[in-house]
Amino acid sequence: MRATVIYGERDIRLEEVPDPILSTGGDAIVRVVAACVCGSDLWPYRGVQPTTEPHRIGHEFVGVVEEIGADVTTIKVGDFVIAPFYDCDNTCINCRNGVSTSCLHGGWWGADDRLGGFADGAQGERVRVPHADGSLVATPAMPTDAQIPGLLTLADVMGTGHHAAVSAGVTAGSTVVVVGDGAVGLCAIIAAKRLGASRIVAMSRHASRQVVAREFGATDIVEERGAEGVAKIREMFDGIGADFVLECVGTKESMEQAVASARPGGMVGYVGVPTGGPIAMQPLFGRNVGINGGVASVRGYIEELLPEVLSGSINPGRVFDLELPLADVAEAYAAMDERRAIKVLLRP
Amino acid sequence: MRATVIYGERDIRLEEVPDPILSTGGDAIVRVVAACVCGSDLWPYRGVQPTTEPHRIGHEFVGVVEEIGADVTTIKVGDFVIAPFYDCDNTCINCRNGVSTSCLHGGWWGADDRLGGFADGAQGERVRVPHADGSLVATPAMPTDAQIPGLLTLADVMGTGHHAAVSAGVTAGSTVVVVGDGAVGLCAIIAAKRLGASRIVAMSRHASRQVVAREFGATDIVEERGAEGVAKIREMFDGIGADFVLECVGTKESMEQAVASARPGGMVGYVGVPTGGPIAMQPLFGRNVGINGGVASVRGYIEELLPEVLSGSINPGRVFDLELPLADVAEAYAAMDERRAIKVLLRP
Repeated sequence: MRATVIYGERDIRLEEVPDPILSTGGDAIVRVVAACVCGSDLWPYRGVQPTTEPHRIGHEFVGVVEEIGADVTTIKVGDFVIAPFYDCDNTCINCRNGVSTSCLHGGWWGADDRLGGFADGAQGERVRVPHADGSLVATPAMPTDAQIPGLLTLADVMGTGHHAAVSAGVTAGSTVVVVGDGAVGLCAIIAAKRLGASRIVAMSRHASRQVVAREFGATDIVEERGAEGVAKIREMFDGIGADFVLECVGTKESMEQAVASARPGGMVGYVGVPTGGPIAMQPLFGRNVGINGGVASVRGYIEELLPEVLSGSINPGRVFDLELPLADVAEAYAAMDERRAIKVLLRP
Repeated sequence: MRATVIYGERDIRLEEVPDPILSTGGDAIVRVVAACVCGSDLWPYRGVQPTTEPHRIGHEFVGVVEEIGADVTTIKVGDFVIAPFYDCDNTCINCRNGVSTSCLHGGWWGADDRLGGFADGAQGERVRVPHADGSLVATPAMPTDAQIPGLLTLADVMGTGHHAAVSAGVTAGSTVVVVGDGAVGLCAIIAAKRLGASRIVAMSRHASRQVVAREFGATDIVEERGAEGVAKIREMFDGIGADFVLECVGTKESMEQAVASARPGGMVGYVGVPTGGPIAMQPLFGRNVGINGGVASVRGYIEELLPEVLSGSINPGRVFDLELPLADVAEAYAAMDERRAIKVLLRP
């Protein structure tokens, strides 16, 4: 089959690789119907994370189950399934605590799992899925083509934006600021609106993303960044800042901006992979601003969000503003790197 | 009157100072019945915080109201009152949000306030209290002598321990680890028990403090620190750590120990003044451990905790294991510095 391999900085290739095979009784083989490129894929693409040897890449996909192991009981051949951006058994204590990204037996796409060997990266034609019963969620029926993008966001960005809002503890009637206008930040707007926030500020300076932010529920746009952005936010909210801030970038600057934009006693929900080093405690301590979040346990959110995606009451699939065949995966990376696209959907 | 002045490292003196006078309509003059030395007073005492010029010190006191300004409406002359470790109007937006330590018009004892000039430090005979209606809480009746220590803890340590537990979000049936066996840490045990924690681990290697910890509700004692302490905690709790960790020290080591002792998805409530520099994000992000807390808004907790102190259903006054006349204030500091006492109560 064909699958995407990263060789180094700005070197993405689609290659022939071995077809996956069932290697434990709990596996499934899924034929990928749609995959995509994540903002975090850009870290190795840009060389910020060095690529020491070529390896598979991609961690978001939806598809159709082609084979299952003997021990798989809830997932059936022919099911259309959503995979979270990691595999998990969904039964261990961390999964039961709602933190399936810390599953005691879980793993990551494009790497060896803990039992059955290699689990394929998602930007390819097929994936071996460990713990199929735990990892995969089947849709009630075969989705329409128009539903595919929305379902694909449940693999990562919609669940991750939701995790930011849940980690912050967004409440009905509250004020929310979203730092970051990538796909995750935009989905965090949907999440804040779902949870009843009365005012949602998108911090964005890109006209096309501002349009999506408004569609998703942003009531205000702030283009300023850093100290100017913080001053604007405080001015908007009683001089003190917003109840909740959702940090969806991960740099030191964005985290500092998020902390300073929260009111005393406010909470920052963060899901941006931290790339900026340690964070100063005094700005948190002095104003009683908390931070909560991390690598988003999206598996646990799929069942909750799925009906709203299928009914169209939320439309996170709107973050895909470019669709390409898998053969053009290198162009998909380039389009996102150059910010010509918010997020690129790939069809094998 | 006499009041305590710090001159520099290990140089604490009781001196004659001017009597306080009413300087705004909202002031009260309170005769101090009991004051005490705080763990945070030891930072300048030990020279960790340099003392550039002599100044008043102390921020915990209870007493009797001697005079009130013309605008004071809820506090009366003769009332026995508890003062939080700061003054606040209790009406501004931050106070209404429960963060009275960020009061827009508040201030600190032993410093100039924002309206009426100097507000005395608490380790003295009298204190001018700005915003008396907002800052002070009167007891329903004149307390007995035996009730004084418990009431005095509501000025800081009991409310601060409670803030750690509330900031973490301790829930009924949860598991809690308390890092720090000073007066605040011990009070955090009371707070965790009040909130229904089913298992409370005190991290302590001092026999006398372990006794108090057990009295307050600790179900387990762990003497190990650092990596060994973390390993012990994880071993006790399913190999993953506790639901909530209350950090009541403030050093880099104690904060790192607290973060590592929380389970994935757990929460650290912290109230120790951060003295250790910035905190690494990856251990928080990777395991979804949040941190919340800060300078404790104890004013808002006094009404809730007061009935339980008066009834004796909680006994935080037990943290005072040494009582001295105000004249011996220098010895009070030395006893705490040398850990001969958990906390020293001073009677003017």
